[in-house]
Amino acid sequence: MKTDAHKRITSFMPPHRTLMGPGPSDVSQRVLDAMARPTIGHLDPAFVEMMEEMKTLLRYAFQTENDLTFPISAPGSVGMESCFVNLVEPGDQVIVCVNGVFGGRMVENVKRCGGTPIVIQDAWGAPVDPNKVGDAFKANPNVKVLAFVHAETSTGVQSDAKTLAEIARRQGALTIVDAVTSLAGTKLLVDAWGLDAVYSGSQKCLSCTPGLSPVTFSPRVVETVKARKAHGQSWFMDLSLVLGYWTAAKRTYHHTAPINALYGLHESLVMLQEEGLEHSWARHHANHLKLKAGLEQLGIEFLVAEPYRLPQLNTIKIPSGVDDAKTRSRLLNEYNLEIGAGLGDLAGKVWRIGLMGYGSCEANVNKCLAALGEVLA
Amino acid sequence: MKTDAHKRITSFMPPHRTLMGPGPSDVSQRVLDAMARPTIGHLDPAFVEMMEEMKTLLRYAFQTENDLTFPISAPGSVGMESCFVNLVEPGDQVIVCVNGVFGGRMVENVKRCGGTPIVIQDAWGAPVDPNKVGDAFKANPNVKVLAFVHAETSTGVQSDAKTLAEIARRQGALTIVDAVTSLAGTKLLVDAWGLDAVYSGSQKCLSCTPGLSPVTFSPRVVETVKARKAHGQSWFMDLSLVLGYWTAAKRTYHHTAPINALYGLHESLVMLQEEGLEHSWARHHANHLKLKAGLEQLGIEFLVAEPYRLPQLNTIKIPSGVDDAKTRSRLLNEYNLEIGAGLGDLAGKVWRIGLMGYGSCEANVNKCLAALGEVLA
Repeated sequence: MKTDAHKRITSFMPPHRTLMGPGPSDVSQRVLDAMARPTIGHLDPAFVEMMEEMKTLLRYAFQTENDLTFPISAPGSVGMESCFVNLVEPGDQVIVCVNGVFGGRMVENVKRCGGTPIVIQDAWGAPVDPNKVGDAFKANPNVKVLAFVHAETSTGVQSDAKTLAEIARRQGALTIVDAVTSLAGTKLLVDAWGLDAVYSGSQKCLSCTPGLSPVTFSPRVVETVKARKAHGQSWFMDLSLVLGYWTAAKRTYHHTAPINALYGLHESLVMLQEEGLEHSWARHHANHLKLKAGLEQLGIEFLVAEPYRLPQLNTIKIPSGVDDAKTRSRLLNEYNLEIGAGLGDLAGKVWRIGLMGYGSCEANVNKCLAALGEVLA
Repeated sequence: MKTDAHKRITSFMPPHRTLMGPGPSDVSQRVLDAMARPTIGHLDPAFVEMMEEMKTLLRYAFQTENDLTFPISAPGSVGMESCFVNLVEPGDQVIVCVNGVFGGRMVENVKRCGGTPIVIQDAWGAPVDPNKVGDAFKANPNVKVLAFVHAETSTGVQSDAKTLAEIARRQGALTIVDAVTSLAGTKLLVDAWGLDAVYSGSQKCLSCTPGLSPVTFSPRVVETVKARKAHGQSWFMDLSLVLGYWTAAKRTYHHTAPINALYGLHESLVMLQEEGLEHSWARHHANHLKLKAGLEQLGIEFLVAEPYRLPQLNTIKIPSGVDDAKTRSRLLNEYNLEIGAGLGDLAGKVWRIGLMGYGSCEANVNKCLAALGEVLA
């Protein structure tokens, strides 16, 4: 028998951190306990009933009546890719708004589907400019899809999803919207705003563990998928197959769902409805204001202009002369506090402080301000 | 605010089942407890250390020294698709052996990659015939990949992976091997047999919860991926990107790993090394023999000829005159016992009784035999 290296390995006992990065966020004991409940089969009638509840709860969170609303059995990146592989066929024109990492990843997705991306650039830290989107539609009348990020996790910026979707609808285009960081943390009204394909993640403002991607698709998306000339490039992400498992009267086996992870998401959605969506938005906003006041006292500046700041993800400039990596290391090792580094061009220049879901609470605000005060002193 | 239907939904309390279907299998309390440990960040040094341990433990389970051995953050179907999208480029010829559902799904994958499948059919319930594979290589000297299922979950058949891989190697072709149901339940020697791209699932003989797909790739696979003319069609499954997160000295963010699910898999792999791989294989075999003896006393016949039976998945013919759905319903509702239905052509004709991982124990054998004895009386 090969390899002896395994012999020294024992059970993994993670440290107890306070998670104030860009996600995963702190997970409540209720959600963790739910995940430890006994596993049942993915076609068990009790599980199918839970799936129905999950769809109802997600419809509430997304504020939609879309029938096709469910959690994809994989991380948010698969949620993103699922939107593109189902809607973008070779030759299709897609306007992609890039103002951070995740807009860039959308461009990559369009290319891999054989589509033609029409890229609109805005500065990292600025929102998407609707005027540029309007101009791009004028210059390209055959655009099929407008893709943009509602809440850019890499910069902490919120864009005006309602206005962007209106422009797309006027032009007869579909929208693909990244709501990974916005869902449950800030206002998101899928039906009222007319969004078509929207994906999110379990580990941000829903405060579930990472690994699931809630999605919702409008009837226009379902029609478009059904009208495709050829099926998409992915078997796993093909909505026409997934439909049979998540929405058909007689469930057909597609893949084995991640049962216990779904227990966790169900519980986090139950907690959301107990609190109420509007209260959740208000709580995120209130804790953001407390953090902001404390940061200002420390002389720390925000990257993003006030009207575009995400309350759940505060991107701040690293004070000059402060060592990025060393400071984050001290926070982690001495305070068990995780905050997020900058990505891409913002690496070394900013920190991202998350106040997401269960972690958006006064205790976390105070802990973070106290720790920052000490390490920056 | 929309939709009131969510208001009646409360925490989900699953029933306590005994899982003797084709997976998920019974999950031990140790694994469930591990999943409920506090979530930490996916770039936390403590988590990165756990990832290294995971790779070591998986190398032991797969019996390989392959550097690129890790769990994909999605179900086994994504493990399958990852093998194909990375290795099959448009125009490539792939011999696919089909003797059940999952071979059929491989054909679908080849097509979606733009490859040309050369399909070898064997009966559902029979193993792959190596002679047919040899003939197919003779008739098609430019075949790039041979793809086959080691342990067909839809039929309970084991094929001779060692011999099939030898044929492929002689022809200079790579192998893609489905080891979803075989890993840890029956002999699988990735390096000794010279297998190239092998994928499995967490919810079978590893007895973790569903949702992760352990994979291992030979150095030949890595070279092939690096030598590609164009990158593959999937962003999420692109090995050249995943490498940066799972194997680079400085970890680069790719996607947010399913932290708590990975705690569970880590624990199940620690349990496997405590028992020892060979003891695990022997236990699966011994419990299979006990079940077989009891089934024979009940006059029940196996679908598969004795030399090709999987000890961890026993496919038996439904006795004539017995109502399939009604009987499985009674087992579930009166005994909390889940056994598997037949798939595809075998629907209504067979049941699949799993004795996988933690669930391969004398108590489960006895429970199943007693329950079957009563409902069939």
